[in-house]
Amino acid sequence: METLLRQSRAVCPFLKKTSPSALRALSTSTSAIHAPGIAGGKMSNLQILARRCPVMGKALAVQSARNGMHSVSSRIGGINVGGVASAAQRRGYIVPTKAVNLQNSRKTEAIASSLEDVHIKAGVFDTSKGICPHGAAAMKAAKAAEDLAVGAEHKLAAFKNSADSKKAKFDYEGFYYNELDKKHKDKSYRYFNNINRLAQEFPKAHMATKEEKVTVWCSNDYLGMGRNKHVLQTMHKTLDTYGAGAGGTRNISGHNQHAVGLEQTLAKLHSKQAALVFSSCYVANDATLATLGSKLPNCVILSDSMNHASMIQGIRHSGAKKMVFKHNDLVDLENKLASLPADVPKIIAFESVYSMCGSVGPIKEICDLADKYGAITFLDEVHAVGMYGPSGAGVAEHLDYEAHATGRPRGTIMDRVDIITGTLGKAYGCVGGYIAGSSLLIDAIRSLAPGFIFTTSLPPAVMAGAKTAIEYQMNYAGDRRMQQIHTRQVKDELDSRDIPVIPNPSHIVPLLVGNAELAKKASDRLLEVHGIYVQAINYPTVPVGQERLRITPTPGHTAEFQDNLLEALEEVWTALEIPRTSDWAAKGGHVGVGVPNPQDVENIWTDEQLNIKHDVATINREEKAMADLIMEGIAAKNNVQKMGIDMMMQAEVNAAVVQTAKAVEVGA
Amino acid sequence: METLLRQSRAVCPFLKKTSPSALRALSTSTSAIHAPGIAGGKMSNLQILARRCPVMGKALAVQSARNGMHSVSSRIGGINVGGVASAAQRRGYIVPTKAVNLQNSRKTEAIASSLEDVHIKAGVFDTSKGICPHGAAAMKAAKAAEDLAVGAEHKLAAFKNSADSKKAKFDYEGFYYNELDKKHKDKSYRYFNNINRLAQEFPKAHMATKEEKVTVWCSNDYLGMGRNKHVLQTMHKTLDTYGAGAGGTRNISGHNQHAVGLEQTLAKLHSKQAALVFSSCYVANDATLATLGSKLPNCVILSDSMNHASMIQGIRHSGAKKMVFKHNDLVDLENKLASLPADVPKIIAFESVYSMCGSVGPIKEICDLADKYGAITFLDEVHAVGMYGPSGAGVAEHLDYEAHATGRPRGTIMDRVDIITGTLGKAYGCVGGYIAGSSLLIDAIRSLAPGFIFTTSLPPAVMAGAKTAIEYQMNYAGDRRMQQIHTRQVKDELDSRDIPVIPNPSHIVPLLVGNAELAKKASDRLLEVHGIYVQAINYPTVPVGQERLRITPTPGHTAEFQDNLLEALEEVWTALEIPRTSDWAAKGGHVGVGVPNPQDVENIWTDEQLNIKHDVATINREEKAMADLIMEGIAAKNNVQKMGIDMMMQAEVNAAVVQTAKAVEVGA
Repeated sequence: METLLRQSRAVCPFLKKTSPSALRALSTSTSAIHAPGIAGGKMSNLQILARRCPVMGKALAVQSARNGMHSVSSRIGGINVGGVASAAQRRGYIVPTKAVNLQNSRKTEAIASSLEDVHIKAGVFDTSKGICPHGAAAMKAAKAAEDLAVGAEHKLAAFKNSADSKKAKFDYEGFYYNELDKKHKDKSYRYFNNINRLAQEFPKAHMATKEEKVTVWCSNDYLGMGRNKHVLQTMHKTLDTYGAGAGGTRNISGHNQHAVGLEQTLAKLHSKQAALVFSSCYVANDATLATLGSKLPNCVILSDSMNHASMIQGIRHSGAKKMVFKHNDLVDLENKLASLPADVPKIIAFESVYSMCGSVGPIKEICDLADKYGAITFLDEVHAVGMYGPSGAGVAEHLDYEAHATGRPRGTIMDRVDIITGTLGKAYGCVGGYIAGSSLLIDAIRSLAPGFIFTTSLPPAVMAGAKTAIEYQMNYAGDRRMQQIHTRQVKDELDSRDIPVIPNPSHIVPLLVGNAELAKKASDRLLEVHGIYVQAINYPTVPVGQERLRITPTPGHTAEFQDNLLEALEEVWTALEIPRTSDWAAKGGHVGVGVPNPQDVENIWTDEQLNIKHDVATINREEKAMADLIMEGIAAKNNVQKMGIDMMMQAEVNAAVVQTAKAVEVGA
Repeated sequence: METLLRQSRAVCPFLKKTSPSALRALSTSTSAIHAPGIAGGKMSNLQILARRCPVMGKALAVQSARNGMHSVSSRIGGINVGGVASAAQRRGYIVPTKAVNLQNSRKTEAIASSLEDVHIKAGVFDTSKGICPHGAAAMKAAKAAEDLAVGAEHKLAAFKNSADSKKAKFDYEGFYYNELDKKHKDKSYRYFNNINRLAQEFPKAHMATKEEKVTVWCSNDYLGMGRNKHVLQTMHKTLDTYGAGAGGTRNISGHNQHAVGLEQTLAKLHSKQAALVFSSCYVANDATLATLGSKLPNCVILSDSMNHASMIQGIRHSGAKKMVFKHNDLVDLENKLASLPADVPKIIAFESVYSMCGSVGPIKEICDLADKYGAITFLDEVHAVGMYGPSGAGVAEHLDYEAHATGRPRGTIMDRVDIITGTLGKAYGCVGGYIAGSSLLIDAIRSLAPGFIFTTSLPPAVMAGAKTAIEYQMNYAGDRRMQQIHTRQVKDELDSRDIPVIPNPSHIVPLLVGNAELAKKASDRLLEVHGIYVQAINYPTVPVGQERLRITPTPGHTAEFQDNLLEALEEVWTALEIPRTSDWAAKGGHVGVGVPNPQDVENIWTDEQLNIKHDVATINREEKAMADLIMEGIAAKNNVQKMGIDMMMQAEVNAAVVQTAKAVEVGA
């Protein structure tokens, strides 16, 4: 017990600062507790405390599940949470003695030693660097330990069951265990990090405890709109007036002015006749492709090989014939189109910005092919809306920057795309997805897609907040320009440091690592040593051998944050001996990194569009002031509506708002 | 023009009260405007005003789409928005003359006369009752008119195209048009009502304008939790601290303490090892069944014939073998189970409360069959969570009321169900869905289901609000008891008035109408004449001939609201000559209504559980006070956490909160 306590103190900050007498007092005093499954409704205060610890809490939860609520241990005889507890003890965690039921069977020992392996592999006990064991790694280890213990228990239970009954039933839990085991073995098992992004300290977040602050460098809240004051004001006000939820599907009491307003704004954004909002863009893509593909007679869907999972699922769910063309390969696409009869309906499904590598689809050329072969185009702008174009409508809008900036959308590339899909959950900072297109298309999907029809509407506050975010970005290009400038700065600095960036013309900064375990180690080290959160991207999200860190700068990632990131990456690349750009070049290049005679990357945002020669900060201040004024005008208008003043008054206010905005614009 | 203006005044409340000189002034003064597609950026103030009108706005939007942004009219030659405008004019709406381009071709006339039909059918011009044309009916007419116009335009375009090119390409817009036309013809086309539920005036809502108030009698915010003060407080606070959106998928920066806390609370609610949150329960059902059905080798899914669309889609998407058993028919289910080999994996998918008829699945008996034949059970408690059981965990919990109320979940029916799915968007008043089950199952779905993996997390404020709603309902049964009491009162009164309620033991009040057109008319009349919103439920949601009105009382639907509803239904049933219970009885009964020798319905909530003999109001006040205290305690605890006080302090606060709660409980 002495040794145990000493070991525990080495790794646990709570034990380190608590005197033995205080610990004794805690373990003997008790409190009534409400939790189901706690016998007698009493726990020692130490137990209550232990339940709050991310490491011990997990172990105790497993134990309570076994001993209290569930009969797993009784079913399988002799194997219970003792395995977990003893492993935890041997690894140095204090365990309230009353709650532990040590088992000495060989089976328990076998599990315990497996647990040890997991703990060591997960790096919990690598305390040489003084990292708090209550952090992410410890959570993962506890989770892995639990999985292993449950899995082992399960195998024994299955063995016993099969001996008991002649006619074996299917072993469901064993099946789940094996599926998970496969993922552990091929390193595709995902560990979630507890990241609480702080609106007031953007781009910072805290981890499980408030004290553990980190800088987030991989969020898809690309512009920080999740903390924009206009968005939050709208959401607070809508919450107060219209409550937390919509209360029904769109057909049954869940259709409201927020849905109408948001869809009108989206249609306007993309210069389309109509738009339709879904729970997410995953659902939008899935539902739209599944519905079109299944309804259009003999439909063929031509799909870019790097399309997002939501499109792949939608195509699968449609049951339509699928032809996958090579990523961004127009020759391959045309060959496939040409192989199909002219009168067969065809959908070309592709993306503008491919989020894991930052490559950009040839939208105009695909529209040309669609026209030539009688196909319709389905363009996913999920990672581009809010980020490109004079109104933030995406890459399709950006390609005719001047035409859209001067209100001439007719005949533009965006105008030619049949179906645009986007999200409200990334650059717009909220949640939800949508499609935009012709009135008939939208009405058909609205009327036919089960994934739209049979689901509760998004909350009024979410829809209102998203509408405000879109309007703000329609009126202010400063955020997305600053985001691009930060992206360029980071990419340039990384290039100069020989750290391998997969080249691309967009706002994504993918760092090639090329190995799943190494990518995860790099991500863990950034987090634990440097307080920087960048998720590792492994198979199946990217192909094996192309594992990477995916960095997404925001307007909030100013010089100081960039310096920290660069120094941290330098340290991690050196410490873990991750290949540099020159190493890849020596091997002839990989995924575009270090390839001989690379083509120049032409950024989507040109230098001119970024005003790169001017004093960017000053320009942004002016533009931002104007945008703020316009948004306050919109809010004032909404207030007038709220007060129930008649339509005449509203029209006057509208006109005044528009004139104010114009005046500011002229003055700017 | 004189006649036009006179006609217009008869139907338009704005024109009625505006003098001719004011109108002239409005039509000659102009304002600068930002909208894309508006030539010159100028509009007359009358135009601006007209754009705000739900009738004219729609017509102008169509026109602007044709003339400005889109080149449809030029493609099809001679047919442009003149068709819409002239129809609108002839029906008495004022149209700014500058904006109208009247066409006299025969084609335009043909479209215009179709439009007239639509207007008349949709009842816009039925002004005998003094109903404002700016209401729901007018919106629908405008929408229908637009569809018709676009459809007609399209047909002509398609005709021209086919003449132009020898090798016809597929006619996409024509296809959408025909699909919609089918729905119009079989009366399954859905018109959405603009319903803005007011948090401060629950259960009231306003329609498109704030003045047009209605009482909502069909929302799935069954308990009014969407306006619960604790839920809203939590959401406001979370919004301020953590912003509008999660900013990523669960794997990439979207996993946080709100997700962890919500999933722990859900696992506790259902006494399961773990839970997993999805964008919606549609996605939860779809993703879980699709994943299990496709991964489990040779899986067979046995599905109740009345299962929700989300399960039907999930089963379809799984590609697994599907066997549909008759609704709630244990003999049919057992026959199907017995026909399958013992070692084949089988999932029995069913619901607790079937939402459109209120029937309840035989959960215990299905668990027995699952055990006997080696199947697992997948129970959708979407319409039951929050509504049944001592903690609000659903019907499965309710069936062992005493055991759960006294903290003994082991061996109960809920304990035996393998997978429970539920929603956060109905009784819990927010949005989102979830599954609860064993740790291995949850981890497998977490690791394998694309619909979970590749989608942005719910916003922190939504997850935190939902957690508060669940905690509140775990601590306070008064809302769901009052809901049940109101349900009984409404059902009893309807029975005594010979208005046909489809008998069921749950909280749903389905009124049999038996005809799609009649059901819609009843719904429209309730809304327009009585200010009561109850959506008509038609095919495909229910079978043809079983069309109904679905009423859902809440704790807020007190005596006065009930009296209004009953009088309104009485009037509508008489005015539209909808069959009464005695009429159905004369025909031998239909869908359980008026059947000879009906079985007594045994309500899920017993008289005893509802404390029906006591003074319900007094009991609720006491219980509510206790629940409020507990919730304030939880909020206080969170505040302490926010202030960053260490774990010791937190434990003490926890204990204090629990003791306070206990003390109140003992005192009550």
